[in-house]
Amino acid sequence: MTKLPEPDLSKAKEISRHYDFVRKQTITLCEPLQPEDYVVQPTGDVSPPKWHLGHTTWFFENFVLAKELPDYELFDERLNWFFNSYYESQGPRILRTSRGNMTRPSLDIVLAYRKHVDTEMKRLFAHHDGLLPRALGDLITLGLHHEQQHQELLLTDIKYILGTNPLHPALVESADILADKVAMPVVKQGWLAIPEGLYEIGYQGNDFCWDNELSVHKHYLEAFEIGDRLVTNGEYLRFMEDDGYARFELWQMEGIEWARGLDVKAPLYWYENDGQWQYYTLNGMRPIDLDVPVTHISWYEADAYARWADARLPTEQEWEIACRQNAREISKSKGWVENTRYHPQVKDVDQDHQFLGHAWEWTNSAYLPYPRYPRPEGALGEYNGKFMINQMVLRGGSCATPESHIRLTYRNFFQTDKRWQFTGIRLAR
Amino acid sequence: MTKLPEPDLSKAKEISRHYDFVRKQTITLCEPLQPEDYVVQPTGDVSPPKWHLGHTTWFFENFVLAKELPDYELFDERLNWFFNSYYESQGPRILRTSRGNMTRPSLDIVLAYRKHVDTEMKRLFAHHDGLLPRALGDLITLGLHHEQQHQELLLTDIKYILGTNPLHPALVESADILADKVAMPVVKQGWLAIPEGLYEIGYQGNDFCWDNELSVHKHYLEAFEIGDRLVTNGEYLRFMEDDGYARFELWQMEGIEWARGLDVKAPLYWYENDGQWQYYTLNGMRPIDLDVPVTHISWYEADAYARWADARLPTEQEWEIACRQNAREISKSKGWVENTRYHPQVKDVDQDHQFLGHAWEWTNSAYLPYPRYPRPEGALGEYNGKFMINQMVLRGGSCATPESHIRLTYRNFFQTDKRWQFTGIRLAR
Amino acid sequence: MTKLPEPDLSKAKEISRHYDFVRKQTITLCEPLQPEDYVVQPTGDVSPPKWHLGHTTWFFENFVLAKELPDYELFDERLNWFFNSYYESQGPRILRTSRGNMTRPSLDIVLAYRKHVDTEMKRLFAHHDGLLPRALGDLITLGLHHEQQHQELLLTDIKYILGTNPLHPALVESADILADKVAMPVVKQGWLAIPEGLYEIGYQGNDFCWDNELSVHKHYLEAFEIGDRLVTNGEYLRFMEDDGYARFELWQMEGIEWARGLDVKAPLYWYENDGQWQYYTLNGMRPIDLDVPVTHISWYEADAYARWADARLPTEQEWEIACRQNAREISKSKGWVENTRYHPQVKDVDQDHQFLGHAWEWTNSAYLPYPRYPRPEGALGEYNGKFMINQMVLRGGSCATPESHIRLTYRNFFQTDKRWQFTGIRLAR
Amino acid sequence: MTKLPEPDLSKAKEISRHYDFVRKQTITLCEPLQPEDYVVQPTGDVSPPKWHLGHTTWFFENFVLAKELPDYELFDERLNWFFNSYYESQGPRILRTSRGNMTRPSLDIVLAYRKHVDTEMKRLFAHHDGLLPRALGDLITLGLHHEQQHQELLLTDIKYILGTNPLHPALVESADILADKVAMPVVKQGWLAIPEGLYEIGYQGNDFCWDNELSVHKHYLEAFEIGDRLVTNGEYLRFMEDDGYARFELWQMEGIEWARGLDVKAPLYWYENDGQWQYYTLNGMRPIDLDVPVTHISWYEADAYARWADARLPTEQEWEIACRQNAREISKSKGWVENTRYHPQVKDVDQDHQFLGHAWEWTNSAYLPYPRYPRPEGALGEYNGKFMINQMVLRGGSCATPESHIRLTYRNFFQTDKRWQFTGIRLAR
Repeated sequence: MTKLPEPDLSKAKEISRHYDFVRKQTITLCEPLQPEDYVVQPTGDVSPPKWHLGHTTWFFENFVLAKELPDYELFDERLNWFFNSYYESQGPRILRTSRGNMTRPSLDIVLAYRKHVDTEMKRLFAHHDGLLPRALGDLITLGLHHEQQHQELLLTDIKYILGTNPLHPALVESADILADKVAMPVVKQGWLAIPEGLYEIGYQGNDFCWDNELSVHKHYLEAFEIGDRLVTNGEYLRFMEDDGYARFELWQMEGIEWARGLDVKAPLYWYENDGQWQYYTLNGMRPIDLDVPVTHISWYEADAYARWADARLPTEQEWEIACRQNAREISKSKGWVENTRYHPQVKDVDQDHQFLGHAWEWTNSAYLPYPRYPRPEGALGEYNGKFMINQMVLRGGSCATPESHIRLTYRNFFQTDKRWQFTGIRLAR
Repeated sequence: MTKLPEPDLSKAKEISRHYDFVRKQTITLCEPLQPEDYVVQPTGDVSPPKWHLGHTTWFFENFVLAKELPDYELFDERLNWFFNSYYESQGPRILRTSRGNMTRPSLDIVLAYRKHVDTEMKRLFAHHDGLLPRALGDLITLGLHHEQQHQELLLTDIKYILGTNPLHPALVESADILADKVAMPVVKQGWLAIPEGLYEIGYQGNDFCWDNELSVHKHYLEAFEIGDRLVTNGEYLRFMEDDGYARFELWQMEGIEWARGLDVKAPLYWYENDGQWQYYTLNGMRPIDLDVPVTHISWYEADAYARWADARLPTEQEWEIACRQNAREISKSKGWVENTRYHPQVKDVDQDHQFLGHAWEWTNSAYLPYPRYPRPEGALGEYNGKFMINQMVLRGGSCATPESHIRLTYRNFFQTDKRWQFTGIRLAR
Repeated sequence: MTKLPEPDLSKAKEISRHYDFVRKQTITLCEPLQPEDYVVQPTGDVSPPKWHLGHTTWFFENFVLAKELPDYELFDERLNWFFNSYYESQGPRILRTSRGNMTRPSLDIVLAYRKHVDTEMKRLFAHHDGLLPRALGDLITLGLHHEQQHQELLLTDIKYILGTNPLHPALVESADILADKVAMPVVKQGWLAIPEGLYEIGYQGNDFCWDNELSVHKHYLEAFEIGDRLVTNGEYLRFMEDDGYARFELWQMEGIEWARGLDVKAPLYWYENDGQWQYYTLNGMRPIDLDVPVTHISWYEADAYARWADARLPTEQEWEIACRQNAREISKSKGWVENTRYHPQVKDVDQDHQFLGHAWEWTNSAYLPYPRYPRPEGALGEYNGKFMINQMVLRGGSCATPESHIRLTYRNFFQTDKRWQFTGIRLAR
Repeated sequence: MTKLPEPDLSKAKEISRHYDFVRKQTITLCEPLQPEDYVVQPTGDVSPPKWHLGHTTWFFENFVLAKELPDYELFDERLNWFFNSYYESQGPRILRTSRGNMTRPSLDIVLAYRKHVDTEMKRLFAHHDGLLPRALGDLITLGLHHEQQHQELLLTDIKYILGTNPLHPALVESADILADKVAMPVVKQGWLAIPEGLYEIGYQGNDFCWDNELSVHKHYLEAFEIGDRLVTNGEYLRFMEDDGYARFELWQMEGIEWARGLDVKAPLYWYENDGQWQYYTLNGMRPIDLDVPVTHISWYEADAYARWADARLPTEQEWEIACRQNAREISKSKGWVENTRYHPQVKDVDQDHQFLGHAWEWTNSAYLPYPRYPRPEGALGEYNGKFMINQMVLRGGSCATPESHIRLTYRNFFQTDKRWQFTGIRLAR
C-alpha cells in the first residue's frame, strides 16, 4: 500500500483521486480471502466481509448517486434491504444478527455492484469536473472516511473469523511482523508530566473531521502524568500471573461478573499450550511477544489492570492534551495499517510514545456529546449522535487504522465488553 | 439421476457400485450451489452443505478406513474436530451451533477430502475383491444409508438457506415442477378401512434396515379408517381462513404457545403478498398449488388441523398396516428425490394413495423403542438409540428422500416444532 | 387425618360429606406453614400455597356456584384474574410465572374466599337436598378430585419452597418418618413374571375417573418381568458411585445434555456434606435412608439408571397389568399421604410390592390419548386433553397422594426433566 | 415523622440519638404492610422489604458489633448468607435474584434480629459513653446513611410490589397527596441563567458525605441555562401525544431498541383506561396530575424528551452549580419523604425551583470517579467504587428521600433503563 497524497477538498479531481485510492484499498485488504470467508458472522459484533463491501458501496449509491446523479439507476433495489446498516430513515433492513446467514447476493454480485457504483461515481465526477460543489464534495469525503472506518472493521472482523477457527489460518504471511530498530526488551515505562491548565479540546482544523469532534471548548485539567508508552504483553502477563482476573478488589463489579460469566482469563486470541502462551495474529499463531503492546482487551480488563498497577486510565481530554504536547511523533509512527503487518509494534528506540497507530487506547471517559454538539439532521445525523450512551471513548488509532483516517481529536467508542478491536492500555496517575 | 440397481450385499462389487452411486449423488445434489451457499447455518437445525460433505466422508474415514484399511493415513487429523456430529465416543467436536462460523476448511479442501476417501475406499474394495467380509459390507452399507439421510438433509437445509434469503433464489429451474396425469382439482378425500387385528410390526426382510425397525412384534389395532391421500394446501388454507391458528380448543397447550410465541400463522415458506399466498419451493417462489400436499408444518399444526377436520393423526402402527395393505403403489409413486422436482406431487389419477415419496407424515406415536430393541454397543449405538425421547415418529418418505433409502417400516423422528423437512398430514379416525 | 368413607355419588348427602372432608384436608395440610410461606414461587413449576387455596376455590365458584346456584354473587370478580390457571375459555389471567409476585389478595382474604364458597356450597347442597342431579354431582366430584390433585402439588411445592431454603426448615416433625415392620436391609429385588397376552387397559368401574383413563381397549403385551419393588436410595447411590451421571452411553442425548447443563449429579434435595449424603425431607434434613425408594428424579435419570442396571422402564400398559395381577396389596399399602409422613416407605416384610402410595413411577410410555379418547368439549375439555404431547406417563401414586384419589388405571404425566414430585423407578425386562 | 435534629458526630450521645431515629423510621415506613408484602421480588432490581430490614441490620452486626463490641455473639451465623448484599470480602451469599424465594427467616425472626442488634448497639454506646472514637462514630454514621438509602429503596420497592399487583392496593391513604399553596396550572417553565466560569465541584463541608463526592476539584463550565422547575406530567403527555415514543430521531439507538423491545409507551405505573391516563401512587390509583413532575422514567426517555423539547439534559456539574446558586430553597422544599405523601409536589407559588426533594433528576453525566478519587480499601471500598461504569448520575433527591440524607453534592446513579425510582427531568440548553 502506498501513501495517500493529501486531498484538496475544493477540487473534484482531488476528491476523485481520494475516492479511487480508498475504494481500491478495500479490495486490496480482502484479496487474501477465500470465497467462504466473505460470508459468516461468528458473533453479533462481526459483519461478513461481503457485507462491508456492499454496505460501503450502498452508502455512495444511496446518499450520493441516487440524489445527485441525474438518471442514476439503482443497481438492484433489493440490495437496500441487505446493505443498510442502521439507518432508520432509509427504510427496513435485515436484522443485524442475520447478516451471516445471507449467502446471496453472492460475492460476484457484490463486486459487480461495487464496479457499477464506481463507474457511476466517475460519471458524477465527470459531470462536475473541476467544480464539485462544496456540500457534495464534503458528502463524498464523508463516505470515504466511512469506508475507511469499515476497512478497520474488515480487518478486525476477518481476524475474528479466522482467529476463532480451530485451524487458525493466517491472512497474510509477512516475514517481518515486527519492525526493526526497536528497544528490546523495552525500557521501563516512564511518565510524561502535563501541567494543570484550562485547555482547548476538539478539532480545530479545516479538513475532514466527524461531527462528534467539533465544538472546540475549554476543559480544565489538574496536573497529571501519563505513561510514555503502552502497556506491553509482558506486563499484562504479570497481572495475569498475579491472579489479576480473580481479585475482585481490582475490578468493577460489572467487570468481574463479565469475566466470571464468560470465563475470561486472558486477552482475546490468547491460547495456552503446555504452559506457554501463544496468540493468534493475522500472520497466524505465534508466541506472545512480550514487548509488544497488549491488545484485544475489554475496558473492564484495562480498568482492572490499571488499578493493579496503582494507576488509572486517562480521561479522553488528558489523552488529547498529552498527545498534542508530544505531537512530534505523529508523523513518524511505525504503526498504521499501511505497513501491512496488522500488528502493534514495539516501542521505537528514538522515543516514539506510541500514541498513534498501535492500539485504540481505552480512556475513562464515557462517550457523550461535547458542549454545543449539534446532532445533525437527516440520515447522516444517525451517524454518531445516536450512539452516545453506555460506551467508552478510545483514542489513538491502531495498527488496523488507515493513517489518513486518524486525527489527534478522533473519538472512537465501544461498549465496555468489546475486545475484537486492537484495544490497548496507557496508564495515567 | 438414474435408478439404482439393487445391491447384492454379499459381494464387494455390488457394494462398491452402490458406494459410487451414492457418493456421486451427494455431489450432484450440490452442483447448482454457489460457493457461499456451502457455509452458513441460519438456524441451529440446519447444517452448512460443506459440513454435510465433510461429515459423510468422515464417517467412512473414521469408522471404515481407519479401522479396516492397513496403512491408511488420515487426510488431516484436525478435520475430526469439524466433522464429528454427535459421537461422544469419537472425541471432542465443535459446537453444533458453531458449524456455520467455520469458513475453513474451505470447499476445495472438503472436496479433496472426499476424493481422498473415495480413492482409499477403492483401495479397500480392491483389497477385498469379491470377498468383502459380511460385517465390513454391512458397515459400508450403513455408511451409505447414513449418507442418503444426509442427502435429504442437504436438500432441506439448502431450502432453508435459500428460502429464508430475501432474494428467494431457486436451486433448480424445472419447467415441470408438477408431473402430468393428475386429478386436478383433486377429488374429495376418501377413507381406507382397516379391520381390527393383531398385526405384526417391524422390518421382516433381509436387506438393510435401521436398528430401530427391528424386533418384529405383535401389535393389536382396533378397526380404523385412514385417509386415501394427504391433506392438500387448499384444505389447509381453509383451516387458516377458519381462524384455525387462533382457536385454542383445536390445539395442544404447548402447540398454541409455540404458535403465539413465534407468531406462526402459516406453514414455513408461505408468504402473503397483497392477499395472495405464495410459497418458496426449490424452483423459486410460486403461487400456492391448492392440490399439492401441504408440507413444512410442525406436529403441533398437523395435530390442530386434524382436530379441526374432526379427525386425528394415525399412530405409526396404523400407518404401517395401512400402507402394507395398499402396497401396490410403492413401485409407482411419482414422488422421491429422483424426479428432481423436490416438491410433493398432486395425487395421481390411477389411485396412488401418496403413502410414499411425497411428505413425511406426522403420526401420533412418540419415538420410543420397540419391544426387545437392543441399543447397539459402541459408536454406532449412538446412531438411533440415544434420541428416543420427546420426538414423534414420521412415516412415508418425502420428495427429498432417495427412493432406494426408504422402506414401509422406516421410522423417521423429529421434535414437535420442526418444520424444515417436507412434513405433511394424513388423517385417521 | 382420618380415612374417607366411600362416597355414594347418587346422593347429595354423600357428596356433601366428601366435600367437607376434602376441603378441610387442604387447610389441614397448610396448617404448619408461616404466613410468608404462602406467597413465593421459587421456580416456574411451583405455585404459591396461597394460589392453590384460591384456585381450588375458584374452581367451585366459577364452574359450580356461578352456574348452578340462583342469586350467587361472586366473592370478588377480580379474583378470577388471579386464580384461573390455564382455562383459555374462562378469560385472561396473570402469567403463570407471576404468581409468586402477588402479595395480594392476602392470605386472610383467600381464607375468607374459601369460607364464602364453602358456605355457598352448603346452600347449594341444601337447595338440592337428597336429590342432587347426576351431572351436578359429577361436576362437584370432579372438583374434589381436582382439589386432591392440588393437595399433592401443595405438598410438593411446599417441599420445594422449604427444601431450597438454606435453613431447610421442616414442615412437620414426626418421630416416626419410617414405619415399623419393614425388612431392613431390604432383600435383593426379585422379578414378577407376567405372561404374554391380549389385555384390557383402562378404567372399568363405575366410580370417578379422569377422561384420559376411559375407553377400555385391548393391548397386546409380550411376556415380561417387572421388579417386585422400587429401586432404593442405596441402589441409586451405587449408580452414582459407578460414575453413572458421566457415562454418556447410559443416557439419552437430551438427558445427558440436561444433566450437564444444570450440573445435576444426584437426585433433587440430596446434599453432600463431608462425603456423606443427606437429603431434605418434609421432616427436615436427614441422612439418606438406603432402603427407602429413591425419589425426586427426572425421567432422564430413571432411564439412565435402568440402562445401567441392564434393564428398562416398563410401559404404562405393562405396569397396569402387573399391578392388576398383584392387586392384593392395594388395600394394605403403608404409603399415602394419610400417614402424614410425606416420605416413601421401606418395603414391607409381608410382600408389599410398593406399587401404590410410595412414588410415581416413571414409565417408558408417552402421554398420548387412548384409542377413541374423546376430548371433552367446553372448559373441562381443557383439563387433560390439551397436555397430550411431550410428557411421559407416571403410574402408582405417591406418599403425597390422597388414598381415595388414586386408582390402578390413573395416568399421571410430567415432562421428562421434572423432579419436584415424588418420582421413582421400577425396573422391567 | 418528626424532624431529625442535626447530629453532633463528636459525641456518642448524638450518634446514639441519630441511630434510634433512623432505625425507628425504617420500621415506621413498613408498618402499613401486610406480612405477605415483605417477601417477594417481582423483578431483579427490587428486594423484598424483609430483606432490607435484615440487610441494614446485618451491616451493623457485621461491620460494627462483630468487630467493636467485646463478647458480641452473632444473632444467627446463618443469616450472613441471606443478608450480605454484594460484599465479596464478606463471604458467599444467596443469588440476588433468589432473595424473593426466601420465606425464611420469617418476619418475626428478622424483627427479633433487629431488636437484638439494637440492644447490642445500645450496649456499645454505653461502653463508649461520651467518648465514642472518631473512626467508630464515622462508621456508625455511615451505617445510618446506608440505612437511609435503603429506606428510599424500601419505598420504591414497595411501590413496585403493590403497583404491579392487579389490585393496586394503596400503602397509605392521605387526604392530601398534594400540598396547598401551589400554582395550578403551573406557569410556563422559565430558565435560570448561569454564567461561564471555573467552578468548584464536590463536597466541601465537615459532615457526612459519601466517598464519591470527595476531592473538590475545578471544573470549567460554559454559560448555560437550566429549567426553573421539573418537567410535568402534562408536558410529558404532550410528548407522548406527539408520537414521541415512535420517532427514532429523538432517541438514542439503544433507547429506542429498549422501548420497542419492552413495548414501553408511557412512564412506569401509567395505565390508560378508556382514553384516560391514570397512575399508581402509594396512595393508590388516581388520574394523572398534569402539574406534578413526571417521574418513573428511564434515562432513555428523559433524553428523548429533552431532544423533543429542543433542549438537553444538564451535566451533573451544571446541575450542582445551578442548584448552589439557587440554594435558598433547600430549606423550604415541600418534598422529601418526611411529608409522608410519597409523591412529587406541584411547584410552589413562591418560587421553589424543585431542585431537591421531588425527583432524582437524570443528568447527561456518566457515573465516573472525580479526579483523585481514592477507592477506599477493605469492605467499605466496595460501597461506591465498584459501580463506576455504565451508569448515569442523578441529582437532587426525591419525595422518597429522607431530608437529612441528601446534599447538594450527592451523586446518585442508576443504569439507563431503570424506572422504579422517582426519576424525573430538568432541561438545560
